[in-house]
Amino acid sequence: MTAKSMMPYVEGNSAIRAMFEEGARLAEKYGRENVYDFSLGNPSVPAPAEVNQAIKDIIEEEDSLLIHGYNQSNSGYADVRETVAQHLNSLHGTRFGAQNIVMTVGAASGLNVAIKTLLDPGEEILAFAPYFVEYGNYAKNHGAVLKAVPADVVTFRPNLREMENVITEKTRAVIINSPNNPTGVIYGEDFIKKLAETLKQKQLELGRDIYIIADEPYRELAYDDAEVPYLTKYYDNTVVAYSWSKSLSLPGERIGYLVFPSEMSDFGNAIDAANIANRVLGYVNAPTLIQRVVARCIDCKTDIDAYDRNRKALYNGLNEIGYTCVYPEGAFYMWVKAPGGDDKAFCAKAKEHNILIVPGSSFACPGYVRIAYCVAHETIVNSLPAFAKVYEEYK
Amino acid sequence: MTAKSMMPYVEGNSAIRAMFEEGARLAEKYGRENVYDFSLGNPSVPAPAEVNQAIKDIIEEEDSLLIHGYNQSNSGYADVRETVAQHLNSLHGTRFGAQNIVMTVGAASGLNVAIKTLLDPGEEILAFAPYFVEYGNYAKNHGAVLKAVPADVVTFRPNLREMENVITEKTRAVIINSPNNPTGVIYGEDFIKKLAETLKQKQLELGRDIYIIADEPYRELAYDDAEVPYLTKYYDNTVVAYSWSKSLSLPGERIGYLVFPSEMSDFGNAIDAANIANRVLGYVNAPTLIQRVVARCIDCKTDIDAYDRNRKALYNGLNEIGYTCVYPEGAFYMWVKAPGGDDKAFCAKAKEHNILIVPGSSFACPGYVRIAYCVAHETIVNSLPAFAKVYEEYK
Repeated sequence: MTAKSMMPYVEGNSAIRAMFEEGARLAEKYGRENVYDFSLGNPSVPAPAEVNQAIKDIIEEEDSLLIHGYNQSNSGYADVRETVAQHLNSLHGTRFGAQNIVMTVGAASGLNVAIKTLLDPGEEILAFAPYFVEYGNYAKNHGAVLKAVPADVVTFRPNLREMENVITEKTRAVIINSPNNPTGVIYGEDFIKKLAETLKQKQLELGRDIYIIADEPYRELAYDDAEVPYLTKYYDNTVVAYSWSKSLSLPGERIGYLVFPSEMSDFGNAIDAANIANRVLGYVNAPTLIQRVVARCIDCKTDIDAYDRNRKALYNGLNEIGYTCVYPEGAFYMWVKAPGGDDKAFCAKAKEHNILIVPGSSFACPGYVRIAYCVAHETIVNSLPAFAKVYEEYK
Repeated sequence: MTAKSMMPYVEGNSAIRAMFEEGARLAEKYGRENVYDFSLGNPSVPAPAEVNQAIKDIIEEEDSLLIHGYNQSNSGYADVRETVAQHLNSLHGTRFGAQNIVMTVGAASGLNVAIKTLLDPGEEILAFAPYFVEYGNYAKNHGAVLKAVPADVVTFRPNLREMENVITEKTRAVIINSPNNPTGVIYGEDFIKKLAETLKQKQLELGRDIYIIADEPYRELAYDDAEVPYLTKYYDNTVVAYSWSKSLSLPGERIGYLVFPSEMSDFGNAIDAANIANRVLGYVNAPTLIQRVVARCIDCKTDIDAYDRNRKALYNGLNEIGYTCVYPEGAFYMWVKAPGGDDKAFCAKAKEHNILIVPGSSFACPGYVRIAYCVAHETIVNSLPAFAKVYEEYK
C-alpha cells in the first residue's frame, strides 16, 4: 500500500508536469519543431559561458575534498554566503553578512525551510491568486495551511483589502512573488509600501509576528528596466527566497539561498532553526560545486533580450488574433484569458493543435491560462497560426 | 516568533553537527594537526580522478541546456536511471530498468521520499538501535513515528525477536542500514533471510504490507571482501536508498537514488508517488550535472584501502590501550564502549584532549561512542596517545 495521503497527488498530478511530459510524447510523434511546448518555466537561454568556465576553473584550482565534501555548516560555505551578502549589499544598500544567508537546494527547498522555520502546524500562510500551485503543497508538508487571497481579475495586482479579509489570528506569513509567476506582473514600490504598512498594522492589532516570504527567482527578469523593490528594506519581518534557476539558467542544479535579515523578530532562533531545517528536511546542504560556481559568477547576467523578444512577439501576435493578455513586466510567462471561459477546455483544445499550455486552475485562478515563453523564438512565431486556429474554433 | 515546533531542534541541535562545528573552532585555536576530529562521516579520500575528469568532459561534450535544465521527469534523466539499473543488474542479477529508479538529492532526501511515499501520518517505522539519529527526524517530517528496536549490546546485530515485540498493527516499514552507521556491522545473508521470513510472516498475520527501507550509503565500504546481500532479492517489499556520498566521496553534491522493485506491492502507485514526493518536498530533481557525472563514473571505486588502514590502526591502538571496540566489517566508524559508562561525559573528557567523537545517545544507544575514522592516517596515529591519556583518567 502506498500512503493514502499521497493518493490525491497521484490522482491529480500537477497539470504543469503532466503537460511537460505530454510534450515529450507529442514531440516524439510529430517532431519537436511541430510541437509548441509552453508548459514549463525551463529557460531556453543557456547558462552564461562564465558558468561552465567557472566549473572547469574550480575543478582545476580548488581542493577536491573541499569542492565535493560536506559543508562545515548546513547553511553552506561561509565564503560563498559572504559573497552573496556583499552582492546584495552592493545592489540594494542592505547590510547583510554571511550570518544572514542560508544556501539552499533551489528556491523550492528554500521555501520549505522558511515555512518549517516560521510556521507551526495549523498556522496560515497567505498567497495572492493566481499563485504557483506548489506553495500549497509546501505549506501542507509542514502542517501549515495555505489560504488564497482572491485574484483581482482586472489588474492582476494583489488586492490589500482582500488580504485584510483573509488575515486571521492564525496568520503567520504572506508569500509574495514578484516578478510574478504566472502573470508577469511586477509589484512596484507604492504597493510594497502599502503592503508593509498594512502588515505592520495587522501585527500590532493581532499582537503577533506576520512574516513576508518573498519568492524571487525572477528578480533579474524585469523588462524595460523596471525596478523590483527589495523587500527587507520596507519590512523587517521578511525572508527572501532566491534561486539561480532562471537568472543563470541552472534550474536542474538546484541552487538558491534564503536571506534572514538581522532586523527580523527572533532572528537568532530563526537562523539557527533554518540551518537545522535544511538538514532535517533532507537537503543537508546546497550542492557544493555549484555553490562555488554561483559565487564566482555572482555578477553574471542571463540574456534577458531573448526573452524580451519572445514577450513582444507573443503578446503582439496573440493580441492581433484577438486574445486578451496581461502585458508581462517581468518573468517569462504570459497570462491569457481563456476564450470561452473554461481554461481546462481551452488547454485541451490547444493540445489538439500541438500547443501545450497550463490552465489557470493550477494557479487557483480558473478562466485563464499560462503560456511559458522561455522557448526558441521560432516556436513563438510558428505557433501563432495554431493559436489563430484554436481561436477560430471559439467564434 | 520562530515556529515552536522547531525549538526542540534548536535547543538540542545535533550533537554530531555541533561537534563538527566545534572541531573548526578548536582547529583555529590549536592548529588543525593538533585536533583529532572524528565527528563526521565526511570522506577523507578525495573523489576518484575520473569524477573531476567526467565533469570537465560533460561540460565540453554535452548540451548546456540539457546539463543544467530541469529534468523531463522529477525522477531524473531516463538515460542516467537506465545506467544505474543496468549497473545494479550486472552486480546483483536483478532485473531493474529506468522505471525502477528515482534519482534523489542524496540518501537523506531519498529516505524522506520513501517515508512520504509509504507511510501515512501516525504509522510506524522501526529502526534497530543504535541508528542514525536523523531517521527519527525524517519520520517526524511526515507525521510518521519512529520506534526503536532495542540494541543487542553484546553482538550489535539486530535482534529479530526484539523486532517482533515492537511490530504493531501500525507498523509500515523497517529501516535497515548495512554496513551500519555507527557500528560498522554488516548484516549477512543468514540474517537477511531470517528478517525476510519474519516480515513475510508478520505481513500475513497483520494483513498489511510492511516495507524494508534499506539505507545503503556504505554498500561499497565492505572490508575483507565481505558480502553485502542485495535486499530486493530476498524481500519484494523493499525500497533501497543509495548515495554516492561515501563511495565516490561526493557528500556535498547531494546525489543518490531510490530503487522501487516492480515486484513490490502497489508498485505503480508507489513509483508515481515517489516521483511526485521528490517534487513537492522541494527537491524537484537530483542535481543535474552530477547525475550525468555519476552515470559516467558508474564503475569507479573509492580507495577503500585507505579506510581499511585506518580501521586496523585505530582498532589495534584502542584495544591495546584497553578500550572495548566492535571490530568494523564495513563503513568507516568504530563503535566503542565508553569507559565509566557515561558516553556524554566521556565525549566531554575526550574533547579536553582535543578528541572529537559523538556520544551513543545520539544513536539511541547510550554508553557507547562513535569514532568516524574517515580522517588522515596521521590523525589516527597522533590521536592514540591522547586516547591513552583519556583512558588513564578513568582508572
